Amino acid sequence: MLTRHATQSLTEQLAERFAERIRARLLAPGSRLPSVRECARQQGVSAYTVVAAYDQLLAQGLVEARRQRGFYVRDLSSKSPAPPEATPRSAAAAVLGESPLPSGSHVNAAALIRGMFHQASNKPQPGSGVLPPDWLETTFMPAAVRKVTSTRALQDSSLRYGDPMGDAELRRVLAQRLAAINITAVPQQIITTVGATHALDIVSRTLLKPGDPVMVEEPGWSVEFARLDALGMKILPVPRHADGPDLAVMQRYCEVHAPKLFVSVSVFHNPTGYCLTPGSAHRVLQLAAKHDFYVVEDDTYGHIAPEHATRLTVLDGLQRSIYVSGFAKILAPNWRVGFLAAPPRLVESLLDTKLLATLTTPSLLEKALALCIEQGQLRRHAERVRIRLEAARVRSVKLAQQAGCTFAAEPAGLFGWVDTGVDTDVLAQRMLDLGYLLAPGALFHARRQPSTLMRINFATTQDAAFWKVFAQVLRDSR
Amino acid sequence: MLTRHATQSLTEQLAERFAERIRARLLAPGSRLPSVRECARQQGVSAYTVVAAYDQLLAQGLVEARRQRGFYVRDLSSKSPAPPEATPRSAAAAVLGESPLPSGSHVNAAALIRGMFHQASNKPQPGSGVLPPDWLETTFMPAAVRKVTSTRALQDSSLRYGDPMGDAELRRVLAQRLAAINITAVPQQIITTVGATHALDIVSRTLLKPGDPVMVEEPGWSVEFARLDALGMKILPVPRHADGPDLAVMQRYCEVHAPKLFVSVSVFHNPTGYCLTPGSAHRVLQLAAKHDFYVVEDDTYGHIAPEHATRLTVLDGLQRSIYVSGFAKILAPNWRVGFLAAPPRLVESLLDTKLLATLTTPSLLEKALALCIEQGQLRRHAERVRIRLEAARVRSVKLAQQAGCTFAAEPAGLFGWVDTGVDTDVLAQRMLDLGYLLAPGALFHARRQPSTLMRINFATTQDAAFWKVFAQVLRDSR
Repeated sequence: MLTRHATQSLTEQLAERFAERIRARLLAPGSRLPSVRECARQQGVSAYTVVAAYDQLLAQGLVEARRQRGFYVRDLSSKSPAPPEATPRSAAAAVLGESPLPSGSHVNAAALIRGMFHQASNKPQPGSGVLPPDWLETTFMPAAVRKVTSTRALQDSSLRYGDPMGDAELRRVLAQRLAAINITAVPQQIITTVGATHALDIVSRTLLKPGDPVMVEEPGWSVEFARLDALGMKILPVPRHADGPDLAVMQRYCEVHAPKLFVSVSVFHNPTGYCLTPGSAHRVLQLAAKHDFYVVEDDTYGHIAPEHATRLTVLDGLQRSIYVSGFAKILAPNWRVGFLAAPPRLVESLLDTKLLATLTTPSLLEKALALCIEQGQLRRHAERVRIRLEAARVRSVKLAQQAGCTFAAEPAGLFGWVDTGVDTDVLAQRMLDLGYLLAPGALFHARRQPSTLMRINFATTQDAAFWKVFAQVLRDSR
Repeated sequence: MLTRHATQSLTEQLAERFAERIRARLLAPGSRLPSVRECARQQGVSAYTVVAAYDQLLAQGLVEARRQRGFYVRDLSSKSPAPPEATPRSAAAAVLGESPLPSGSHVNAAALIRGMFHQASNKPQPGSGVLPPDWLETTFMPAAVRKVTSTRALQDSSLRYGDPMGDAELRRVLAQRLAAINITAVPQQIITTVGATHALDIVSRTLLKPGDPVMVEEPGWSVEFARLDALGMKILPVPRHADGPDLAVMQRYCEVHAPKLFVSVSVFHNPTGYCLTPGSAHRVLQLAAKHDFYVVEDDTYGHIAPEHATRLTVLDGLQRSIYVSGFAKILAPNWRVGFLAAPPRLVESLLDTKLLATLTTPSLLEKALALCIEQGQLRRHAERVRIRLEAARVRSVKLAQQAGCTFAAEPAGLFGWVDTGVDTDVLAQRMLDLGYLLAPGALFHARRQPSTLMRINFATTQDAAFWKVFAQVLRDSR
């Protein structure tokens, strides 16, 4: 919020806030700033202050004025006279020529993802993808770290590159953990990674070459769409329903495009919270066998699911499927420890990709994680989180409904998939002004099409104050 | 070495040793096992033991017998009837169709790199790319880790994703460090990475699209060749001389291929130890300006170089150049903390690539590193290492010359570039049997052509015992 007692004038504060969002691409090139009158009302300042702030942005070259139409964000990338090329090619931009999707959409996806890591304020963030830090606080995690950072242990794990496959002890306990959910994998099939994101990146880089068709569930997490796009893959979005992916659509893709890979979140799908049914899982694997494609299952949310939840990799026995997970949702998002478990014949090439991308991964955190898992503390912590999440979900659902939202999917898991009735890109922009980060529906679509849906995090939306503000903004937007 | 007092028979030990090397691709598909007589002599066992061991390998399907010619390693990738494709496509294999280089070479490069991370024995490893652990032992590193792992500090740095750019404090001290070597960069131009390897990966993925021509110094580190190849780039090897890259070759490439990027190690080049001269640096940058390409400078060995060493990024002022470095060679190889400093206009797209590949990087180790740098301890440690390395180099050079080697480049920095007069692939294989990992010259060439050169690490080749064994093997091979 703007404050009258700061060292900066209101004009400077307002100009700087817009400048920051433009640079962070939270305001996309070509988008219109609010009208002077609207901005003055929203911020509770005079029209004069807004005009002066917009003038500063004009002087900085961040916006342009269009006669009778207002102020528009300039395209910064084409502004600077870059020596090597007129516009530096981002990985995403570099492949747009080959991509079947229109250009603007992808650049914005990456920008929007960056926005998701932007700390909007100290308020609980409804659009966040992780549990709040206080939910993740444990005594066993610091204790585990203390054990692996004794001077001797620290030097052992720091002063050599370490095993490219990952810490042997962690891979041993991960194999046990997988056995508990009925996936048989020896430690030699497990490779540790820099979070589940890195595991998915390694799988794509190993199994696919640019131009290859890949099926991805839609709605789905935009990092996956953006990465595949940046790697030059042809994205085939598969509608995700309550019981699983749309099999008729997959069948058609198989006949027309011969896809090489299917990327799926079976358990507590992001953003819908859907869980795959056994029948659907069986048919997906039949299709995979018939049409010769691999399946990569992202089980990031598996920690907060019952052990008997249906997983493709369980049915398949890691024959043509790869299991991926991490610990960002249950232990420590910033540790960036993830892993993959793969069919034995793929391990060597997956390992090569890891080596070429990062050589090894930090053993210190892997060893600490192994202790947390081995002593059963992580499992017990996950149980407590599940119970706490149940209660939070009940409360958040009630508040959301009272604020005028409906649920597009039966509430389950960490996320709610909420219909607001208005374009959530617009809502997200307005709420950001008030210090709240939303996750608009467009973020979960391969083509970034506008949507009235949004994803809420049940753990961060129990706050009546947020919903009161939201309901007001929603009413103003209708 | 084989031992007569183990729980396994000599036959089993011998068979297992070969099996392990075949699986790790230290023995490439199609290569011939030593003759029974030769193997028996090398290992000090009976011919009967060798025949029995080879029979076990045959039974396991790892080798095949060719009448009158001996035993050959089978191609494992085509052995298993992989469901999705007959042979799983590694990232490297996937692009071979498009690559201007012949196929077998690349798969072997990745395998050879994997071999470099294979712990051959507890002996000092002449082929190692890092300083021995005891050279890296310090008291300040564990002290820094203790500071950042107090329960409160640990939770602050673990329980949120953290800034995608990297820890703010580390980026601040890195900016100071860069200023000390005359590179002006604000923290907003610096992005932390999972080691220098990841930084180079991010740069390639951001600035290039598959098929783009890239100039890389040759000889050079094979991870760079293998990665660019796996990403589908067209590799243009530039001969590296004592004063810098071959400018006439670069000029020709520019005219014919219009390369997009030049990858260079200016200071203590790997494997030759060469340092770029100011004149050569100036002409490289002139060429870059004229022909519109970016330069990425890998300054991994900068820690053991004088501060005034010539760097392309210093002359260029990060206009069309990107600086990359890490701390594997001076503090902790397994921490995997590296960084890049880039022209402001490229930062956003580089950051997007980092997000898509790993989201954020672990703050814990970044914060500990910041402490080590800020308090001047790392700089003083580096000075001590430099002095110790001087002495080691003098001793190693003398021993190498006594063993019958000559130096292809004036000894400097961490590595010696040594001419043995015989094919070093063959030497490396024989020495591995004796527990020593060498770095044969083929590892440093884009096309993996056989070479009589090898890279030695001055810190791990002061051991007269190694050189005695080496001299014997060398005599046997001539």
